[in-house]
Amino acid sequence: MRFIAFAHEDGRPAIGARLDAERIVDLSADGLPDTLDELLRQGESGMAQASAAQQRARSVLPIDGLRLLPPVGNPAKAFAIGLNYVDHAAESRFELPRHPVVFQRYPSSWVAHGQPLVRPRVSREFDYEAELVAIIGKGGRYIPTSSALDHVAGYSIFNDGSIRDYQLRTNQWTLGKNFDASGGFGPEMVTADELPAGAKGLRIQCRLNGETMQDANTADMIFDVATLVSACSEAMALQPGDLIITGTPAGVGLARTPRVWMKPGDVCEVEIENIGVLRNGIVAEA
Amino acid sequence: MRFIAFAHEDGRPAIGARLDAERIVDLSADGLPDTLDELLRQGESGMAQASAAQQRARSVLPIDGLRLLPPVGNPAKAFAIGLNYVDHAAESRFELPRHPVVFQRYPSSWVAHGQPLVRPRVSREFDYEAELVAIIGKGGRYIPTSSALDHVAGYSIFNDGSIRDYQLRTNQWTLGKNFDASGGFGPEMVTADELPAGAKGLRIQCRLNGETMQDANTADMIFDVATLVSACSEAMALQPGDLIITGTPAGVGLARTPRVWMKPGDVCEVEIENIGVLRNGIVAEA
Repeated sequence: MRFIAFAHEDGRPAIGARLDAERIVDLSADGLPDTLDELLRQGESGMAQASAAQQRARSVLPIDGLRLLPPVGNPAKAFAIGLNYVDHAAESRFELPRHPVVFQRYPSSWVAHGQPLVRPRVSREFDYEAELVAIIGKGGRYIPTSSALDHVAGYSIFNDGSIRDYQLRTNQWTLGKNFDASGGFGPEMVTADELPAGAKGLRIQCRLNGETMQDANTADMIFDVATLVSACSEAMALQPGDLIITGTPAGVGLARTPRVWMKPGDVCEVEIENIGVLRNGIVAEA
Repeated sequence: MRFIAFAHEDGRPAIGARLDAERIVDLSADGLPDTLDELLRQGESGMAQASAAQQRARSVLPIDGLRLLPPVGNPAKAFAIGLNYVDHAAESRFELPRHPVVFQRYPSSWVAHGQPLVRPRVSREFDYEAELVAIIGKGGRYIPTSSALDHVAGYSIFNDGSIRDYQLRTNQWTLGKNFDASGGFGPEMVTADELPAGAKGLRIQCRLNGETMQDANTADMIFDVATLVSACSEAMALQPGDLIITGTPAGVGLARTPRVWMKPGDVCEVEIENIGVLRNGIVAEA
């Protein structure tokens, strides 16, 4: 299944499931929760009810013109992984990590597909990062790698927009990775059963104004999705809705000569094979 | 005022205000919200109602025997600051930071005063860190240092318990700073008007089994509370209830010869002058 989160014209949130390329079924209108966060908390029974409601197709809407919301709006934890592709670690002049490099990305830092990314007034160094997101469906602690993929409900796309001067002016990246509305998340959550195990082997690209800036494959991750789920769960019990934003391949603007930054008027697209295209325009902060 | 969060015997959360050393007024029983998170969102009117309810003193309870909860249970953001005392940066063999070093601490990683800190089964390197916490009352973005303290509702105490091998095995500290139930927070929130501006000039100590391990003064911070509020708000709009956990002075177990770790059966106390004592026992993970 392919889930989207969207807002009705009066602002009410709802979730939908794709019927085909043009249409969705409004699941919330058929008694399902208003958010994917809540549906994920309901576990397998929630997913079974969603599937049944998709098939009933009581309320069908055209997807064109819908205002999307981020697939998950308020996870307890959104782990972002750094330096998880060999070529990107090299271009960033960091050592190759021997364990997953983890930092936090707050919900206030991301917007949905189609919403503008905001370049803050205090910096010009606004960089893109194409990333695969794993969305946790079943929580747990000390999850072994061998069963870790059973804990992933689905996958989506993230643009881990980064304010490089703020990110790199101290040794912890949190501030520069969390400017309000600096990242993109969506357009939809594709359930794990529709993709290869661990979403491995999918082409991942970033295009800025149509020009390809990153072009790699999710099989090139240093730590694959199963390893990341297991590693994060060593420290903390994972919860349904938690995100693991799995890191970006080579080609970021920081590593180019001359450097390339996103600027107002630009359009940035992140595409992952069989998952979709996340598209956001860039605006200057008001 | 001095606010505590507590749980009734049936589990219902409530907030109270200190009447004196032995007694609190149950504010929630007098129509106030059940959590300090919600009271803080109500801003000045909420605080005025809390003050009036404290004076009415309709429902008075002895504090002895109450099961405390963390003062703030679920902030949108809990910024923890690294290397914010000169001597601690030196003992940790990091360069003195030129900007605040910021990482995230998740609510799942802390427990209330009186609740046990859990040493995880995967590590022995469980360290203490005495810290002052600033609790945001009024949100805002790009808050100037000159008015930053107007955004702080009050202060509390934090034990930024750290699993050192996990913290330091990559360059981002998030996992080692966020093991479930590895930190302590409380016992109460003391409103800013009861303390010196910015909670500056207060003695801060950590005692392990009664032995003083850290003994410093909050005036020794490299970046004071006003500077931290301003710096965090450059990246993100702060929200009521957000925490800034302001960093620890010298004397941590990692920097000692031989190293000192918290172990099951130990008792760790963090005391800050005029704020209180945060006490937690240590247990082994089940």
